[in-house]
Amino acid sequence: MKKEIKVFDYASEVLNGMKSGALLTTKVDEKLNSMTISWGSLGVQWEKPIFIAYVRESRFSKKQLETNQEFTINIPIGSLDKRILEVCGTKSGREVDKIKELGLTPEPPQSISVPGIKELPLTLECRVIYNQKQNEQQIPQEIKKDFYPQSVASVFHGSNKDYHTAFYGEIVSAYIIE
Amino acid sequence: MKKEIKVFDYASEVLNGMKSGALLTTKVDEKLNSMTISWGSLGVQWEKPIFIAYVRESRFSKKQLETNQEFTINIPIGSLDKRILEVCGTKSGREVDKIKELGLTPEPPQSISVPGIKELPLTLECRVIYNQKQNEQQIPQEIKKDFYPQSVASVFHGSNKDYHTAFYGEIVSAYIIE
Repeated sequence: MKKEIKVFDYASEVLNGMKSGALLTTKVDEKLNSMTISWGSLGVQWEKPIFIAYVRESRFSKKQLETNQEFTINIPIGSLDKRILEVCGTKSGREVDKIKELGLTPEPPQSISVPGIKELPLTLECRVIYNQKQNEQQIPQEIKKDFYPQSVASVFHGSNKDYHTAFYGEIVSAYIIE
Repeated sequence: MKKEIKVFDYASEVLNGMKSGALLTTKVDEKLNSMTISWGSLGVQWEKPIFIAYVRESRFSKKQLETNQEFTINIPIGSLDKRILEVCGTKSGREVDKIKELGLTPEPPQSISVPGIKELPLTLECRVIYNQKQNEQQIPQEIKKDFYPQSVASVFHGSNKDYHTAFYGEIVSAYIIE
């Protein structure tokens, strides 16, 4: 069962929920993949409700989005097995079938081709209408040092030296899986 | 008096409020200017709370932001004199002192150099940490037709053929003016 919601009425749940970790799910052919995110934006442009996801160049999700420009965002409500965000935040879909490994439950989608993940019930179905790689020339030095270390492998951020692309997903359905 | 708020707890108020119209205010020297906006995003990047404002190339606010990279966002709570959004949405700060014409009340800011506007009490003080002009090559044709008409002056959107720059403002203070 899906309970339809007005997404802006749940904006606090989306943004506060994302801080502790949400999932971005993509699908190409039968390859379904979820990645943990803790950044993203909710808003309006071109009179459409939009979720902006930021995805690094090297991510498997980036490759998936180049082929199928649809994604779901899933936000936890209440308690959540922390292992889900841990595995989806550290392993790559190139090597592991995370959905299978974690025993996650794909929920048949309503408007797009990518299912949501039942364990994180607040679901946004999004269709990319615009994307733009962020311009490293415009990023302040302090941010580069923390999030895009070029020389040494930072312990915390791993080898995350590549920049993000902003994917503007029009929110075409929003609901809570019950 | 200012009542401090956690901005994500007021995300619904910000996003729903913006749909009917909010103000973006900039200041250079003594020149204070408010522009009506109905687009914008609230979210997180680089572990910072961020409001993204979309401003067209030709706008006076764009020129102001190039000199002083700080802005306030003001969201109405309850009823609001519609003339404020009308005047701030149609007249240019190049020609008119809108604050004076409308008799708006600037509220002394907390962390930046730009005051908020008391008549729209929910206030976000923002400091631009990143900006990027949107890439017309990536904008879908249907959106271009509606929002960036190149040939004829659209009645609805005026001569708005120039593209938007996304200004990422780190939200350094958030409060309700009481």
